[in-house]
Amino acid sequence: MRLIDEVKGILFDLDGVLWLGDQAIPGVAGVLHRLRARGKKLMFVSNTSSRSKAKCLQVFERMGVDVDPDEVFIASECAARYIAARKPGAVTYVLGSPGLFDEAVLAGLDARTTSTKHPEQAEYVMVGKDNDLTFTRLTCALRALKAGAKFVAVNCDPTVPVADGLEPGAGALAAAMTFMTGREPDVVVGKPGTLLLEMALERCGLTPAECAMVGDTPESDVAAGNALGMHTILVLTGNSDGRTADDDLNIPAVMRPELTLQSVLDLDLAAAN
Amino acid sequence: MRLIDEVKGILFDLDGVLWLGDQAIPGVAGVLHRLRARGKKLMFVSNTSSRSKAKCLQVFERMGVDVDPDEVFIASECAARYIAARKPGAVTYVLGSPGLFDEAVLAGLDARTTSTKHPEQAEYVMVGKDNDLTFTRLTCALRALKAGAKFVAVNCDPTVPVADGLEPGAGALAAAMTFMTGREPDVVVGKPGTLLLEMALERCGLTPAECAMVGDTPESDVAAGNALGMHTILVLTGNSDGRTADDDLNIPAVMRPELTLQSVLDLDLAAAN
Repeated sequence: MRLIDEVKGILFDLDGVLWLGDQAIPGVAGVLHRLRARGKKLMFVSNTSSRSKAKCLQVFERMGVDVDPDEVFIASECAARYIAARKPGAVTYVLGSPGLFDEAVLAGLDARTTSTKHPEQAEYVMVGKDNDLTFTRLTCALRALKAGAKFVAVNCDPTVPVADGLEPGAGALAAAMTFMTGREPDVVVGKPGTLLLEMALERCGLTPAECAMVGDTPESDVAAGNALGMHTILVLTGNSDGRTADDDLNIPAVMRPELTLQSVLDLDLAAAN
Repeated sequence: MRLIDEVKGILFDLDGVLWLGDQAIPGVAGVLHRLRARGKKLMFVSNTSSRSKAKCLQVFERMGVDVDPDEVFIASECAARYIAARKPGAVTYVLGSPGLFDEAVLAGLDARTTSTKHPEQAEYVMVGKDNDLTFTRLTCALRALKAGAKFVAVNCDPTVPVADGLEPGAGALAAAMTFMTGREPDVVVGKPGTLLLEMALERCGLTPAECAMVGDTPESDVAAGNALGMHTILVLTGNSDGRTADDDLNIPAVMRPELTLQSVLDLDLAAAN
């Protein structure tokens, strides 16, 4: 496979690409191992806003894949780091699940829960997937934004597929905040925003053109990769389950992958040829 | 005041026009009484999605204003009646406060709370201001809509002013549902939609041109009245507090009132001349 031969680095989305729910796709560990043996730099970029990086690393461990924490870029952690880089210790209200709150604390932010209708003056509001959502929490975020806090959306996914169906994603809450305040997010960290991928590329010192982005979602993974001028590979295991390569011709060019594969296992088969 | 002399009916918004919070604007009872004595048909049209009609009637009673329940059109009640008129007893999930649930029951709908992530097949989802919001409730509404239920937004107000600040309105949740499902509401009952006003006009048998709409919000009250070809009067007591008549020139024509008054008390003063 010429594309894989040519690139120096490969960025992988996680859910729907390496694993489904908490179940690794059988054979994935071997594929990653062999790509590394061929000298490819691997990185992992996930829109996850409700899971902390530590939880993601646990899944890798259960899969038997040896991963350095520095190779993993989780939107929840990157959002916290983005804020901390601009304003160390910033007062930050977190509309999101405990995993996002944990990342805010780890990044050294003065993190606050959104459990009050009377927020103090804050510098940032982070909006992620919030499994603990209440009316009070939504009101807190609204009032903090209205009082002038900056608006950081961890991602803008409308929904998130879970084992028994769809759940509201970070984007559903970000859309509600935008409708209430008349303000778009000051930054969207996750895909199809490019910040997450740029942080990964910067860390490993490769240019976008030297790397491929492998994902299961044309609207986020492929769009973000294309926007940066990366090579893009769509796999049909997750959000694009049931899709065929022919379908690529019917989607807008910005979401169209350079290559479509059944799964990440095909990276390996091709590499072995 | 020629305009008031000419009209046969007057539709009043409630919050910000007749009362502020739970406090009647002093003198309002007398104004309404004298307008009726002059033969004007009075009706009351409120976007309220979290308060039941019974609660609104209690406020009128405390104000000392004698009002027939048939003269009051509350978006929560009208949304329930709208559904019941199309599908009596329809299975309807209610994403909203208890007042909205009460109206669904009163209209004879098979009302369901959104307290499960596994909704049954439903015909309608009603979305109002939900002071009891949780992640489970939002997920329930998402899944019911995804499974094919019709989407009725009680109103599309982004926020609602309360005593100590802003709270998320019905429109914030409707915007989240639209972002998650890719579907606009099948109907928006409240202003600036015209359904609420049309129901009031139909009940009293007057044409739009024979009536004036009196409200405090250009974007909803005035826009709805103008859309129907009613006379429109803006009062500066509620959402337009601090506004001046000159400001009218700077807003789009669809939201521009025919007449701007300091408060509803000016209707009376003018009528007395």
